[in-house]
Amino acid sequence: MKITTQAEFYKEFGQIVTRIQEQKPLIHHLTNYVTAGDCANIAICFGASPVMADEISEMEEITGSADALVLNLGTINATKFLSMQKAQSAAHKKHIPIILDPVGVMASKMRHDAAQLLLKSGVSILRGNYDEVKTLFLGQSCGKGVDSNSKALDSGTLAQSVAAKYNCVCVITGVIDALSDGEQTIFIENGHQFLTKVTGAGCMSTTLIACAAAVWENKLLAAACGLMTMNFAAEEAASVLHNSAGPGSFKVRLFDAVYNLAEGDVSI
Amino acid sequence: MKITTQAEFYKEFGQIVTRIQEQKPLIHHLTNYVTAGDCANIAICFGASPVMADEISEMEEITGSADALVLNLGTINATKFLSMQKAQSAAHKKHIPIILDPVGVMASKMRHDAAQLLLKSGVSILRGNYDEVKTLFLGQSCGKGVDSNSKALDSGTLAQSVAAKYNCVCVITGVIDALSDGEQTIFIENGHQFLTKVTGAGCMSTTLIACAAAVWENKLLAAACGLMTMNFAAEEAASVLHNSAGPGSFKVRLFDAVYNLAEGDVSI
Amino acid sequence: MKITTQAEFYKEFGQIVTRIQEQKPLIHHLTNYVTAGDCANIAICFGASPVMADEISEMEEITGSADALVLNLGTINATKFLSMQKAQSAAHKKHIPIILDPVGVMASKMRHDAAQLLLKSGVSILRGNYDEVKTLFLGQSCGKGVDSNSKALDSGTLAQSVAAKYNCVCVITGVIDALSDGEQTIFIENGHQFLTKVTGAGCMSTTLIACAAAVWENKLLAAACGLMTMNFAAEEAASVLHNSAGPGSFKVRLFDAVYNLAEGDVSI
Repeated sequence: MKITTQAEFYKEFGQIVTRIQEQKPLIHHLTNYVTAGDCANIAICFGASPVMADEISEMEEITGSADALVLNLGTINATKFLSMQKAQSAAHKKHIPIILDPVGVMASKMRHDAAQLLLKSGVSILRGNYDEVKTLFLGQSCGKGVDSNSKALDSGTLAQSVAAKYNCVCVITGVIDALSDGEQTIFIENGHQFLTKVTGAGCMSTTLIACAAAVWENKLLAAACGLMTMNFAAEEAASVLHNSAGPGSFKVRLFDAVYNLAEGDVSI
Repeated sequence: MKITTQAEFYKEFGQIVTRIQEQKPLIHHLTNYVTAGDCANIAICFGASPVMADEISEMEEITGSADALVLNLGTINATKFLSMQKAQSAAHKKHIPIILDPVGVMASKMRHDAAQLLLKSGVSILRGNYDEVKTLFLGQSCGKGVDSNSKALDSGTLAQSVAAKYNCVCVITGVIDALSDGEQTIFIENGHQFLTKVTGAGCMSTTLIACAAAVWENKLLAAACGLMTMNFAAEEAASVLHNSAGPGSFKVRLFDAVYNLAEGDVSI
Repeated sequence: MKITTQAEFYKEFGQIVTRIQEQKPLIHHLTNYVTAGDCANIAICFGASPVMADEISEMEEITGSADALVLNLGTINATKFLSMQKAQSAAHKKHIPIILDPVGVMASKMRHDAAQLLLKSGVSILRGNYDEVKTLFLGQSCGKGVDSNSKALDSGTLAQSVAAKYNCVCVITGVIDALSDGEQTIFIENGHQFLTKVTGAGCMSTTLIACAAAVWENKLLAAACGLMTMNFAAEEAASVLHNSAGPGSFKVRLFDAVYNLAEGDVSI
């Protein structure tokens, strides 16, 4: 396991962001109704074009015209899961990246089974918090709810093991983020604690990662770029808050910051 | 009927808010797709952990691991109603509070029947506007749409009668809020008219009440604490608005204010 | 084809906006879960009362008590489409305006078939971007995703042709908006490019148009009023942004601006 810090990748991040602006990739989301609007907005801010659709009869056409597929298990149900499987097949056929966000996978057997099936059918990138990823790795529940209870010390090992086991890039977000493709492991330490005070921070990170993965061959770098964008935007957003501000204002400025970063008005 | 003003409870509110921060209760929502994100955000701002899930096969596990259950009838459908009944059973088994928000119950027979079934199966707290609660009490439609047309004069009597009839705490929100457990009735007069200019103010109030009810035995006090938090946050949010602001800015600052209040940066 | 500029209608717009405040029309939406909250908020800001409901057994009652019906194809599925048809029948029975937003109609055969069926069953106003409307006119796919790739030069002709073909008002939004009832065609040139940087700008325009159509007989004027409100609010919102702002802040101020405009604090 080669451990790298994100600093080494800074020069490539600019190229990835520029390519998103140029290609405006279409990101097909099968996602939850809690944060769907947030994901759509952050994708647009980053320069991509989101489409949210989950009717099974549309999956072949919509995934077939997309540049990346996001499968987010929040508010999953039996019907939507079938659409996810159909979309996953279409994504494989078109060779576009598939990004899985196993929201709250420790919360029920149904979610766990769904996530395992999707993982085993092949995904490019898995992004979750420590408990979610550990649950999938161990094949059993280990937490409650959908919030992280991160144990950063061995998140690198977990990310590396999961990446190797499922032949994907594994991204574990927390106070320190760990990303691995099974060979190389990257740690990212920036971000802001307000990211834990808004719903959808995880989902939006997944979306940003998908935007980058849609235009860049190296999925580990793409994931790092998406995550760095989220973390850096969070720092930027927090830095411009006025005195009495809180998570509400922070979230608004998070979209601003991603947009300004993508437009090149702020450099990482 | 003993009538009380909220001033008598101020000292307990601080304890309830502190306990939410300490216990970080998990609030399972079966709710609508219009304001689900708002409810999740306000729960986090208050220190709780929200989970939105409505697949029937998950209900036993997810409600079974939660500390309170919110049943919100906005965008209800036949499938989601079955999940609500399943979740309600699981909540009864685990003895966690159930908070029912009969959004727009006067708008259709289906909603009315659904709300009556849920009420009769036992809820801890019912929160609605005057028309919604009156419809449930009389067993017939009396309004249009989901907006309130409050008649504050007898809302106390209505709250008290409904609480006694259904053996729950009844909360009627309006210009003057009335809360009753059938014995004691509380009136709350604070808040801000901008609460009527954003969607989800009612749903978010219900969520805040659920957060408090999850950690506090006396459900009347818990409901008063949740509602006072909403009202006080609304006043705080309105007080910091700049000149050309309106409901958009108000809503953002509402989340800030709940967060700052819960964090103890503002005292009621 | 008589071509008119919007300036001629300014005096009537004030009357339409005033009537919305007075009548507080109930706008029944069958819409997507991505922007449902945005549509509800913008309707309230404009003085209307939104209701989002899509359970088929409620359609007769809810559409039957509404003043306008919005059919928005975003996140459509087979079940929701059946509810849309039921609601459309109820709207025809009650003679209230039906506003169709064929979101992403070029993305799948299912959407295209659904939109054609709804169009042929009679709608009062069709609002889409150039690609969406052209797809419906030609009866075949011509774009990708849900974003506009506007060709403003002949959008007036397209709007006029579609309006004549389907006996409705056709609204094509883009850098220059074109509206036609088949006889008269209006072009609107205001707005702000940030409207393309937030999700839901199209959906919210549709909602504002529905609010105006609910209270005004001349649907071409109503559509122009709704669209002008959106565009003018966008300009107003952009004008008050601070230095480091972006689409996040813009969207917040957009709600503020619609509210202030509707309340008469800003005049068009």
